[in-house]
Amino acid sequence: MKNNPFDDVDGTQAEILKATYQALFNHGYSELTIKRIGDQFDKSPSLIYHHYDDKDALVLACLEYLLESFESELIDDSIENPRERLEESIFWSVDPTFDAEAERFFTMMLELRARSTHDAAYRTYFERNDRIMHAYFVDVIQEGIETGVFREVDPDAVAETLLTLIVGAVHRRSSVESELSLDKLQVEVQMYLNRRLYKCT
Amino acid sequence: MKNNPFDDVDGTQAEILKATYQALFNHGYSELTIKRIGDQFDKSPSLIYHHYDDKDALVLACLEYLLESFESELIDDSIENPRERLEESIFWSVDPTFDAEAERFFTMMLELRARSTHDAAYRTYFERNDRIMHAYFVDVIQEGIETGVFREVDPDAVAETLLTLIVGAVHRRSSVESELSLDKLQVEVQMYLNRRLYKCT
Repeated sequence: MKNNPFDDVDGTQAEILKATYQALFNHGYSELTIKRIGDQFDKSPSLIYHHYDDKDALVLACLEYLLESFESELIDDSIENPRERLEESIFWSVDPTFDAEAERFFTMMLELRARSTHDAAYRTYFERNDRIMHAYFVDVIQEGIETGVFREVDPDAVAETLLTLIVGAVHRRSSVESELSLDKLQVEVQMYLNRRLYKCT
Repeated sequence: MKNNPFDDVDGTQAEILKATYQALFNHGYSELTIKRIGDQFDKSPSLIYHHYDDKDALVLACLEYLLESFESELIDDSIENPRERLEESIFWSVDPTFDAEAERFFTMMLELRARSTHDAAYRTYFERNDRIMHAYFVDVIQEGIETGVFREVDPDAVAETLLTLIVGAVHRRSSVESELSLDKLQVEVQMYLNRRLYKCT
């Protein structure tokens, strides 16, 4: 979370996306302007307009890049410990030790998902995001069932529930932080996995 | 969901809130304008400006009214069947039979919660909303434990989880509807209650 995910990429377009991500992260979507993206960019801001029409084109290109990196990581990987894999994919969302920087990331996610309600490009993006996450959870759960460490659940139903918990947790963190007992939520999500999914806990 | 919740209230201010709710419901927050609120209002639109400074003051007054009605309903009620009460407070959020009108309500909730990220008045509102919902779930769960129908869980932890599931479900419905298996989510939330909370299911 500490590093800009575009730190290791090269080329003008990648540098533009890096600047976009940084500006989005620092100011949030509603305060994001091309000027602020330009402030994070070492070259002439006019190059930004040469490559992208407006701030949404920049934000969506950033999101697409992140999702593609995430997806290719998943494909390369074999699932050796389904329980560990599942937990590391869930518990970041309810981890109470996360810092202010992570909170800004959560805020960004709520603002951007809200754009799906009236912008088809964001909707398409979040549909793809949720489809990829769902498929990943299903793979891990199926692996757990096949290797005998998980109970015979419906992987789709458990995947939907986990994804819904993650979205709810991220969105509540960024809207009602002071009212949220993350430590209790974390314990209870663990209880759900123990009671519903894991054999012999 | 079909009726405007302000249908039975009287007076100019109530009529303004009724018009605001209707305009918000029809157009969503991002497309809401005082002009559109005026279009739903039988009297002179200038009366709106006389009572409220801007569209956010109107929306927040609407939300406050709804929350207060909800809260006073809860206080009046005794909890006779904790299981039924809990389920009716949760399952609306994952009910696949809801119509397009309900979907507009969900969309409204996502847009408004997203405003909490950069508007303190919305944040205060949603904090109060979540606090009231949390307290209600805790009451119902405690009643279930005391009357011996629920297991000895931590009511706070279960309440947090249910609230997080509701927010996640409402927000996913309005952002990624086509990707969401509501029927599976509904079955799985029921499984969570059965396995974790209810005795003898």
